[in-house]
Amino acid sequence: MTDQRQLKLGFILHGVGPGWGDWRHPDAQPNASTNFQFYKRQAQVAEAGKFDFLFVADSVYITEKSSPHYLNRFEPLTILSALAGATNNIGLVGTLTVSYSEPFNVARQFASLDHISGGRAGWNVVTSWLEGSAANYSREKHYAHDVRYRLAGEYLDVVQGLWDSWEDDALTFDKKGGQFFDPAKLHTLNHKGEFFSVKGPLNISRSPQGQPVIFQAGASEDGKAFAARRADAIFVSHEDLDAAQAYYKDIKARAAAFGRDPDQLHVLPAARPVVGRTAEEAEAKYQELIELVSIDNALSSLARPFNEYDFTQHDLDGPFPLEAAEFGANSNQSAVNRIVEAVKAEDLTLRQTALRFATPRGHFVGSTEQVADNLQQWFEERGADGFVLFESLPGQLEAFVELVVPILQQRGLFRTDYEGSTFRESLGLDFPVNRYSRALQAAE
Amino acid sequence: MTDQRQLKLGFILHGVGPGWGDWRHPDAQPNASTNFQFYKRQAQVAEAGKFDFLFVADSVYITEKSSPHYLNRFEPLTILSALAGATNNIGLVGTLTVSYSEPFNVARQFASLDHISGGRAGWNVVTSWLEGSAANYSREKHYAHDVRYRLAGEYLDVVQGLWDSWEDDALTFDKKGGQFFDPAKLHTLNHKGEFFSVKGPLNISRSPQGQPVIFQAGASEDGKAFAARRADAIFVSHEDLDAAQAYYKDIKARAAAFGRDPDQLHVLPAARPVVGRTAEEAEAKYQELIELVSIDNALSSLARPFNEYDFTQHDLDGPFPLEAAEFGANSNQSAVNRIVEAVKAEDLTLRQTALRFATPRGHFVGSTEQVADNLQQWFEERGADGFVLFESLPGQLEAFVELVVPILQQRGLFRTDYEGSTFRESLGLDFPVNRYSRALQAAE
Ligand SMILES: Cc1cc2nc3c(=O)[nH]c(=O)nc-3n(C[C@H](O)[C@H](O)[C@H](O)COP(=O)(O)O)c2cc1C
Ligand SMILES: Cc1cc2nc3c(=O)[nH]c(=O)nc-3n(C[C@H](O)[C@H](O)[C@H](O)COP(=O)(O)O)c2cc1C
Repeated sequence: MTDQRQLKLGFILHGVGPGWGDWRHPDAQPNASTNFQFYKRQAQVAEAGKFDFLFVADSVYITEKSSPHYLNRFEPLTILSALAGATNNIGLVGTLTVSYSEPFNVARQFASLDHISGGRAGWNVVTSWLEGSAANYSREKHYAHDVRYRLAGEYLDVVQGLWDSWEDDALTFDKKGGQFFDPAKLHTLNHKGEFFSVKGPLNISRSPQGQPVIFQAGASEDGKAFAARRADAIFVSHEDLDAAQAYYKDIKARAAAFGRDPDQLHVLPAARPVVGRTAEEAEAKYQELIELVSIDNALSSLARPFNEYDFTQHDLDGPFPLEAAEFGANSNQSAVNRIVEAVKAEDLTLRQTALRFATPRGHFVGSTEQVADNLQQWFEERGADGFVLFESLPGQLEAFVELVVPILQQRGLFRTDYEGSTFRESLGLDFPVNRYSRALQAAE
Repeated sequence: MTDQRQLKLGFILHGVGPGWGDWRHPDAQPNASTNFQFYKRQAQVAEAGKFDFLFVADSVYITEKSSPHYLNRFEPLTILSALAGATNNIGLVGTLTVSYSEPFNVARQFASLDHISGGRAGWNVVTSWLEGSAANYSREKHYAHDVRYRLAGEYLDVVQGLWDSWEDDALTFDKKGGQFFDPAKLHTLNHKGEFFSVKGPLNISRSPQGQPVIFQAGASEDGKAFAARRADAIFVSHEDLDAAQAYYKDIKARAAAFGRDPDQLHVLPAARPVVGRTAEEAEAKYQELIELVSIDNALSSLARPFNEYDFTQHDLDGPFPLEAAEFGANSNQSAVNRIVEAVKAEDLTLRQTALRFATPRGHFVGSTEQVADNLQQWFEERGADGFVLFESLPGQLEAFVELVVPILQQRGLFRTDYEGSTFRESLGLDFPVNRYSRALQAAE
């Protein structure tokens, strides 16, 4: 064991990959997104690489214009549960939206996954940013952005309250006395709030981690405030190290202002390494990737954060139509802002904007040493506590595990074996003492 | 292969067992209900016995008076998904209530399980009968009984509609042409009904079974009508063979009246075999079971179908308090009626009623030959197309697989190997042609 600060690494299980053209690569399995064997294989490779966790993203609305990885995908809780049985140590994180689900059901599903996996469940709490989603849930309109985060806070109160229904030692199993549990250690939540009334208790005992780990990916003001206050780990997406450092500093300060230990909040930018044995090999692979994307696909990709705005009505080589930003105001604000800023700073045409954002290069294209160096720099210069990696090119996860992980390990930046049996132990997170036991301890 | 009609067998994964005292047996694992290794082991034993399916029941409301198997249990979709990876042929059936969930989410989860398992998912569609459930879902009141079944019908329309979003060959994966799917084979549901408005399409392709198998456990008039019309298989619970035959005849006639082939609807009574090498051994085991239940537990058990009516306010040795029936009118009607009928017919005291219904003997306590004989009789005399078995005593599933299954196989009543790779193939159910492909075929 080393006392050095350690990198945290996650891997996004994307099936066909997040790029519009990824599935077209000659080596890609176009049915990967609903292929259990493919998921299992990737999970096991990531676990062999001692990754902290696997992540399954989610969304709840598609149209025929959506990108391949949105169109056809596993539902997160089911695939993560299946992977629980195929792995032993790696964390299992899934997205579930608070806008279109019931806290009682969600609390149960994650607690159940935590039991099944022996303490490896994590929940990425999102509010959903595709307005069309409402139409799949008998709703007139998607919640407004600020309402969504107010709701998310209450939702998490309910779920975490339900997770404490049973104290850790509530099940006594006294066969002789006939006492299955100690009624003094079973608690009814009786939550009544602005959005939810949930009585409880939950019909599943406290899970091995006490409570599953909370992830968040808020990028707006409301989103950052929520994450800084409630999350154990945050996903972000950055243009460069400067932006990452600014974000990192800001979010840690916010966490501290909420009375939290900033080290108990991991900032994990998304990164797509494209690794080659040499820099040239990596560069060639990145070119392969770009060539898979057509301008049509790039335009569709651009449309998504803009609430499916129809960009095809505009001249490709004219200026980027700024009116689209208004159309997307209640959607993915942070992505919209990032794109609009770049457009304004560099006077981009519509075509340039679409192609640029369809396959962003990122900072992790290079030889194994270069990629390791860049990850190390972001980590040591406090742009990140770790990364959530994803692959667009088949074989990149394996290349990373074989060639980059050993370098990180040699440099003392990354574990050579799992620290314990739960995901919290991997992340170095405190065990959340049950609120009722805590109340009792405080009273004594 | 034989042309003889074949028994269908399911097994209920109950963890601690459904009886109040089951967990107290010396050999019982009291933590079984959230023990993945226990579930996996039972699943593999049932698969070794060539069972058609595993079943995970569910409910969404507990109080401190609930029985051990309700208090602490896995959520069905998560545990079934985990078991998908640990088994190869056996069907995976889970309960999910239409009263407290969103059809878009439910359609996704079962489709996802069907993909993960290679075509082995089944959904037991229930409406929930515990009125308290509403309090866990921000609702003032539980839906009335008739409303619940109207809602269930519409709910199933939506889910099955969503399952047809993608035609079987909609994903074309044309890498050269850049066409991931054929837009003419992706369909938007646009459902607008009394309870739900769901646009679609579903964000997961059509699953290996086309559509997961539909189970139902309706026992009331509305419940039976719903099951006869929509279910592929029905769970029931019977006092004796006469009742089973009457039910069987009735439900098959109803199915025929709806224009269905009655053989495409399997009637599966619940049965708890207690098998011994001799009749005496079995009898002794049944006695062990009875002795585990206290009168307090028996009263709590009685309370559940009566909507948690407080029986302790009455004299144990006085007449059964018939006013309790009214209290449970919107709850589990069929169970209430069965109990009230017995009370009236035999003038039972409260104590007698409680003990009788806490550990009903059933018809399958006996030597291996006796149990096989009884199952065969119920099957051949058209009280059942098969059974959903459960165990209260540890080791009974294994005893059944080792000792009774071979007898049924020798008699040509039960498979010696799985017929195909999907659950539908085990059950002999037709593949549900996608509604849009069918429309096209009809037009041609
Ligand atoms: C690595 C990463 C993973 C994400 N996963 C999801 C996801 O699974 N589902 C989702 O709706 N949004 C996901 N998001 C997107 C955020 O939810 C999105 O950026 C959101 O709009 C930011 O929140 P805000 O703008 O409301 O603050 C992810 C973002 C990142 C950086
Ligand atoms: C084998 C079997 C399994 C059942 N599983 C469930 C279940 O998982 N969840 C549930 O709420 N009810 C379950 N039921 C109970 C029926 O839903 C219950 O009998 C219901 O009240 C009957 O419906 P009805 O009275 O509304 O027609 C099951 C019944 C049987 C016989």
